[in-house]
Amino acid sequence: MIVGEVIGNIWATRKEDGLVGLKFLVVKPDRSENTPEAPSFVAVDRIGAGVGDKVMVTKGSASSHLQEGPAIPIDALIIGIVDSVEVERSGSNG
Amino acid sequence: MIVGEVIGNIWATRKEDGLVGLKFLVVKPDRSENTPEAPSFVAVDRIGAGVGDKVMVTKGSASSHLQEGPAIPIDALIIGIVDSVEVERSGSNG
Amino acid sequence: MIVGEVIGNIWATRKEDGLVGLKFLVVKPDRSENTPEAPSFVAVDRIGAGVGDKVMVTKGSASSHLQEGPAIPIDALIIGIVDSVEVERSGSNG
Amino acid sequence: MIVGEVIGNIWATRKEDGLVGLKFLVVKPDRSENTPEAPSFVAVDRIGAGVGDKVMVTKGSASSHLQEGPAIPIDALIIGIVDSVEVERSGSNG
Amino acid sequence: MIVGEVIGNIWATRKEDGLVGLKFLVVKPDRSENTPEAPSFVAVDRIGAGVGDKVMVTKGSASSHLQEGPAIPIDALIIGIVDSVEVERSGSNG
Repeated sequence: MIVGEVIGNIWATRKEDGLVGLKFLVVKPDRSENTPEAPSFVAVDRIGAGVGDKVMVTKGSASSHLQEGPAIPIDALIIGIVDSVEVERSGSNG
Repeated sequence: MIVGEVIGNIWATRKEDGLVGLKFLVVKPDRSENTPEAPSFVAVDRIGAGVGDKVMVTKGSASSHLQEGPAIPIDALIIGIVDSVEVERSGSNG
Repeated sequence: MIVGEVIGNIWATRKEDGLVGLKFLVVKPDRSENTPEAPSFVAVDRIGAGVGDKVMVTKGSASSHLQEGPAIPIDALIIGIVDSVEVERSGSNG
Repeated sequence: MIVGEVIGNIWATRKEDGLVGLKFLVVKPDRSENTPEAPSFVAVDRIGAGVGDKVMVTKGSASSHLQEGPAIPIDALIIGIVDSVEVERSGSNG
Repeated sequence: MIVGEVIGNIWATRKEDGLVGLKFLVVKPDRSENTPEAPSFVAVDRIGAGVGDKVMVTKGSASSHLQEGPAIPIDALIIGIVDSVEVERSGSNG
């Protein structure tokens, strides 16, 4: 999972069946030390995240099993609102 | 999901079974601030998108469950035509 | 899907069960304007592509459902031989 | 799989159903010779890894089949605590 | 699939259930002309590959269906030991 910040909303009236009623948010990935910025992307939210929240996001098809029945065509899901991160050291391999 | 713009069409007469009748469009990803351009790619469209539309695209195998029955071999699907994006700030981690 | 050109063949006698009889081709991705070259890779072909053909390739596990029964361990499949690409403009976000 | 070092913990009280009780750790990928640093990410741990451990991590939807029943929405799982790595040469293609 | 060279072994005694008995090898991807080096990674081997072998590797969840029954949490599998590669030209799009 990656950690990022919710920075906006996105709306699409015309969309694939099965996606009606889902909330789509724009997420900006946190930047790791010594690595370039990663591009923002859109994730589905079902846990009440909003702009300014720090969130954990699952990417790829693992995000698409939201309910019983068939998978839906999404590739990013906000899975948690981060309370705290405790990084004790930045690793010995840097 | 990523957001991009439909910039063209692509045709392939000889193709894998199961893909007959699908419409393939060329999508150019929007560029995030401070990140390099990402390459264009081909996505399947079933919602009537066309050149110039801003679209949301699901990538990976989550895009391949288009109907009942077996998955089909595609890895990108246009899932929505974007009405509006509202980015309230660009994040505090940049 | 990405678009690329078939540039070679690759042979492996000793391989995973379930892959016997498949044809493996080397594909070089087309380069998008303003983006770096992407590395060549190996894709399975079942539609008769050959060196010099421009092809569409599905990557990831969506490529692995080639038949009834269990998935096979491949991550790239040539899904079409491209007849023509019509890119009407290169997008307004570049 | 990639090899990295556990560098921290992350907590999220509000999260997707099905993730309650899982332990989330921050992992910093080891850096390969001649390649840039890759960003840190969050992985689920079920084998008792902790800060300072060198671990193998599976990414993508293969990490999401943790038990009988439906997949859960995670995209990274610590699958082993590394005892030793023996790299005999760095390859002839570098 | 990508082509690379086996450059080492890796051992992990404590690991996820379902992975006991698998052999893990370190693979260094071949470098394509005009592209940067890609990082080494760990792949499962079931066909008897060893250090110095040139191999084809499947990445992602397609590598995780190794047997009847549930998928196991791995994301890279050596699927073939390469006998020969014949690249007839490096493509016209470079």
